[in-house]
Amino acid sequence: MKTIAVEPGSGEPAILEKPSPVPADGEALVRTLRVGVDGTDHEVIAGEHGGVPEGEDHLVLGHEAVGVVEDANGTALEEGQIVVPTVRRPPNGSNRYFESGYPDMAPEGEYHERGIVGAHGFMAEYFTSPAEYLVPIPAELAPLGFLVEPITISEKAIEHAVASRSAFDWQPESAMVLGNGSLGLLTVAMLAKTLEFDRTYCLGRRDRPDPTIDIVESLGATYVDSRETPVSEVPEAYEGMDFIYEATGYAPHAFETIEALAPNGVGALLGVPSSWTFEIDGGALHEEFVLHNKALVGSVNANRGHFEAAIDTLTQLPSSFLNDLVTGIYDVEAFEAAFVDDDTTIKTAVEFDRI
Amino acid sequence: MKTIAVEPGSGEPAILEKPSPVPADGEALVRTLRVGVDGTDHEVIAGEHGGVPEGEDHLVLGHEAVGVVEDANGTALEEGQIVVPTVRRPPNGSNRYFESGYPDMAPEGEYHERGIVGAHGFMAEYFTSPAEYLVPIPAELAPLGFLVEPITISEKAIEHAVASRSAFDWQPESAMVLGNGSLGLLTVAMLAKTLEFDRTYCLGRRDRPDPTIDIVESLGATYVDSRETPVSEVPEAYEGMDFIYEATGYAPHAFETIEALAPNGVGALLGVPSSWTFEIDGGALHEEFVLHNKALVGSVNANRGHFEAAIDTLTQLPSSFLNDLVTGIYDVEAFEAAFVDDDTTIKTAVEFDRI
Repeated sequence: MKTIAVEPGSGEPAILEKPSPVPADGEALVRTLRVGVDGTDHEVIAGEHGGVPEGEDHLVLGHEAVGVVEDANGTALEEGQIVVPTVRRPPNGSNRYFESGYPDMAPEGEYHERGIVGAHGFMAEYFTSPAEYLVPIPAELAPLGFLVEPITISEKAIEHAVASRSAFDWQPESAMVLGNGSLGLLTVAMLAKTLEFDRTYCLGRRDRPDPTIDIVESLGATYVDSRETPVSEVPEAYEGMDFIYEATGYAPHAFETIEALAPNGVGALLGVPSSWTFEIDGGALHEEFVLHNKALVGSVNANRGHFEAAIDTLTQLPSSFLNDLVTGIYDVEAFEAAFVDDDTTIKTAVEFDRI
Repeated sequence: MKTIAVEPGSGEPAILEKPSPVPADGEALVRTLRVGVDGTDHEVIAGEHGGVPEGEDHLVLGHEAVGVVEDANGTALEEGQIVVPTVRRPPNGSNRYFESGYPDMAPEGEYHERGIVGAHGFMAEYFTSPAEYLVPIPAELAPLGFLVEPITISEKAIEHAVASRSAFDWQPESAMVLGNGSLGLLTVAMLAKTLEFDRTYCLGRRDRPDPTIDIVESLGATYVDSRETPVSEVPEAYEGMDFIYEATGYAPHAFETIEALAPNGVGALLGVPSSWTFEIDGGALHEEFVLHNKALVGSVNANRGHFEAAIDTLTQLPSSFLNDLVTGIYDVEAFEAAFVDDDTTIKTAVEFDRI
């Protein structure tokens, strides 16, 4: 079967023929429909993040998949059922994070991530998975099922942020997303359309006309150009934000978020930058944290509960938004187009098969 | 009546005779028993924090009080009842933070703090207060009732920290308190004796022999000398901490806490430093935040629920610990001794009257 894989050091994905997998006991065989591409894939391809499975010289890419059960193999799944796979797998049998249903909270060494680190991904005509890691979705969501996994990332981050404010009667009204990539835009849509934020903002650094700015504004959100309004000046220029979602990976934003929050606000940090030393007014930030009861939560990955929430969210997002967000679906033979990262590309997927 | 007050710029407290207060409707008159002294008092005296009530040239000090109801004045309180006053008061009638029971979440401008900013404190032979801000405590706690308010600070911080970890099955085992002042020691005692932490640590910078180190060790906690083990090296030297409570006000600690936390850990920030610019590896800290699901929560003040929890906590703390913690109770005439801040002083209070 055809897979899309990367060899370390090659810096680019390529088609790789591999034998079709055979499901083990407890596993189902899934025929892949579509697999999304995101920033993590680009980081994996560039060798900045992740790693190949032990003993292998390549990594099959892809962690945002939707497929159809081809062989239920005696599991509780049904053949023909549409499923989205979760991403993390236990490296050696299992561990308490997986057993308790919180693989997303496992520390390094206690998980593999399919298509990212230690385990092959889903960019293949077929993949196998233990049935417990395959989340059924309604058949009508199949075409956009590859958006479930990125939505889970925000479901988790928002859940943790809200939890951090649960010791008082938090009444958030304003929210800002830092970053106008596909994850940022999905999150703006969630905040504006499925959650109860009265005023939403999205910060980027693009010139108009720009399709992401158009999407931000079509969602009723305000576009903020970080070249004109640095994050730290957001309260003065707009308002202090009750919630900030950082999806830029630009390290100063993690700390400027403290200043941009309204009193009692919370920032969710999602980006994964590299080492970078810079100056901050740590005294002022520390004081601001304390005297205004602010919080920051880091968040990575997601668990099955977040997949179930994301499926529900996907049904609620406006179809016009989803149409604008997905800028290209490409056949396996034209897969390179799905990995182009330019200003007209927002969200792409590779199509392996149709239902 | 005698009060202990400070005039801005004087840099030291003094006895000030003032007329005894008369309770307004809804207020009770309280005869003051004891009022504790803490770091905030020293900051207020030094002019680094807080401010006098509008139109006044002095501030009566004291926010850690215990008293006895002298005149219930038609409120639901009973004369002779022992009470601890909460600290925050609404500046103009009321506002939503007070109405909802969360005055501790009010931003600047929406609160006064008695004895700190905008309202006179409790270091007076008598004070009045709306009955709703007087929390009854058992009579046998009266001698140590001045410890209730500092305990509330930790009740709130711990509640918010735990809330931030409530979206998964957090199972904390290790906790470190940064700072071995009286608040730090009270918190070590809470973590070791009333909460379920298996291993507790307290970080300071004192040479042995030292009474605070003795207290730390008598609580079964490990003393960590920050001159030998910087906060960032705690995981290597001891272990990553599931919970860190920062009570130093030393701004670098707020950021080093991110490194010292175990995966999925949370740091509560309590200190109130001044502006201070320094370098951090913001990229590494940001990445650590995200990939290990860490959280930081700032926390200030406390609400009535925390006072009720603190009263319960006070009954559970070992009396030997409390005896060691309180190094001096001084009559009003000898009040200066309660404000001495040296290595043999841990927690002091001024005694205005006995039951």
